[in-house]
Amino acid sequence: MTTEFDLISRYFAPLAGSGGLGLKDDAALIDLLPGREFVVTTDAFVAGVHFLSSEQPGVIARRLLRTNISDLAAKGARLSGYLLTLALPNELNEDWVAAFSAGLMLDQEEYGISLLGGDTVSTSGPIVASITAIGTVLQGSMITRSGARVGDDLWVTGSIGDAGLGLKVVQGQLPQISLEDRSWLSGRFSLPTPPAGFGAALGELGLANASADVSDGLVADAGHIAKASGVRLKIDGSSVPLSDAITRAISRGLWTISEAVTAGDDYQIVFSAPHENRDRITTLAVHHSTLATRIGLVIEGRPGVELLSDTGQQIKLTKTGFQHR
Amino acid sequence: MTTEFDLISRYFAPLAGSGGLGLKDDAALIDLLPGREFVVTTDAFVAGVHFLSSEQPGVIARRLLRTNISDLAAKGARLSGYLLTLALPNELNEDWVAAFSAGLMLDQEEYGISLLGGDTVSTSGPIVASITAIGTVLQGSMITRSGARVGDDLWVTGSIGDAGLGLKVVQGQLPQISLEDRSWLSGRFSLPTPPAGFGAALGELGLANASADVSDGLVADAGHIAKASGVRLKIDGSSVPLSDAITRAISRGLWTISEAVTAGDDYQIVFSAPHENRDRITTLAVHHSTLATRIGLVIEGRPGVELLSDTGQQIKLTKTGFQHR
Repeated sequence: MTTEFDLISRYFAPLAGSGGLGLKDDAALIDLLPGREFVVTTDAFVAGVHFLSSEQPGVIARRLLRTNISDLAAKGARLSGYLLTLALPNELNEDWVAAFSAGLMLDQEEYGISLLGGDTVSTSGPIVASITAIGTVLQGSMITRSGARVGDDLWVTGSIGDAGLGLKVVQGQLPQISLEDRSWLSGRFSLPTPPAGFGAALGELGLANASADVSDGLVADAGHIAKASGVRLKIDGSSVPLSDAITRAISRGLWTISEAVTAGDDYQIVFSAPHENRDRITTLAVHHSTLATRIGLVIEGRPGVELLSDTGQQIKLTKTGFQHR
Repeated sequence: MTTEFDLISRYFAPLAGSGGLGLKDDAALIDLLPGREFVVTTDAFVAGVHFLSSEQPGVIARRLLRTNISDLAAKGARLSGYLLTLALPNELNEDWVAAFSAGLMLDQEEYGISLLGGDTVSTSGPIVASITAIGTVLQGSMITRSGARVGDDLWVTGSIGDAGLGLKVVQGQLPQISLEDRSWLSGRFSLPTPPAGFGAALGELGLANASADVSDGLVADAGHIAKASGVRLKIDGSSVPLSDAITRAISRGLWTISEAVTAGDDYQIVFSAPHENRDRITTLAVHHSTLATRIGLVIEGRPGVELLSDTGQQIKLTKTGFQHR
């Protein structure tokens, strides 16, 4: 029988950074540079709910890590490390754990983050994996949801709706979409690309007033900012950045803009920033190879979000977001 | 249907400390006083493995929190806050969550710690609850497992073996034990009492050279110190602190000293300290209403633990510890 200790020494100890003490102690130590403070977040995945058993374990691991990285990016935090908890069925093949940890190693290199500690337990149910990620910000510079001011521009990174349509594709829906687009879209669901470097820089340079990650859907997450800040957000539907695959699906009537802005799992960030920061934000985005697009304005009014069409008409949304599982 | 958002606002937001931002943001913020650094740990419970479905949810919550507090106490850390992840079956009654969070509230007051954030997800399997706890130490003062030096005294807090026998009682074994002892022992399993204040003070005053929490069993956890420090530990069996209930069970042949020192779940701390710190440690223990007992010595030799009887004979152990689930 493979014990918890075996799993740790074989697969997880190699992922540990210096603070993780080789995962050989009861706890991990985290250094903090003077003048910085910690930001922490946690996200969990359950087999059959957040991932399919047919998915590659390494991809599942990376998506879980990236959903946490997305939260930290939205807060303007620089990544430090993470803790991992795994509840594993006894009958699970050790290969699954090997592939899961290999996926984490890939993303540790990609994002410059390392494992600090964790716990591995057995369960009679489906796999449950949870990560607590830790980042740092300059003291007082965490970007909250509540700082949006009337007159701010509203921005979003990346392209919106890819993961939502990608999930449908992964589930075997919409066979009308071309093989090429199906492959690209499912990849956007499987492996989102949260703007870690751009988010951290946005925080350090103090360029944004409010920010949230796009996990429940653009409108829902913008709504969190609106509610916390006590402002109204006007999103220009024609400005919402869409990938070619999404544009093609919409033009063929397979998907709508209102579905794209209410679909979850994009793991981009939506933020508000003063008008005068436009050029610096654009330059920063280019520097970090991140797409950053102005999609609307912060206005006075009842806290909420309105989505306008090309002709300035308000687009009715059938649902305002994705109730996260 | 009760949504994740409902559960959070009803039961978990009231547990949030100031850094938790009312659990309304993507992440939590943690302040750090100058000259201190962070210590983090994580522990998970699975229904049917780490707790029985017949146990009260509040007690389960408190035990989970306390297992994490135990890790921090062993590192000499002062408690800051914690994050909670819950994977809950859809059919679970909301009362369970209410009672679980009420238990956390009790221990937040008892230990002076508050909730920073978390995630609630649904699962088709048993409940999985995991906590990541965060504490702080003076820079460079975390007590590791690797600092034990030849000549140090070996100490342990509390009494040993109560939780191990308590678990047997909870499982309905050993009906020969008196009702009074059964009740007390099962309580020691259900609600361990990690020495949080004493552990933090031990760290701040720099009195211990090495420490680990007693979760896998005294011998196994002392063994972790021995291995990490490259020393041998000699434990005097007759010095191991035993409760009256355990002493009675041993005298009736229902339990043995070797079972007591290899049983898990005590959540006390075992530590090594220089001879000259004896008086200060004793005074500190009294001040924190913690029992601290010298049980042996750090000696040269092959890294490991030996347990000696009254007559100086080495007691053979059938197992050196409890393989944690």
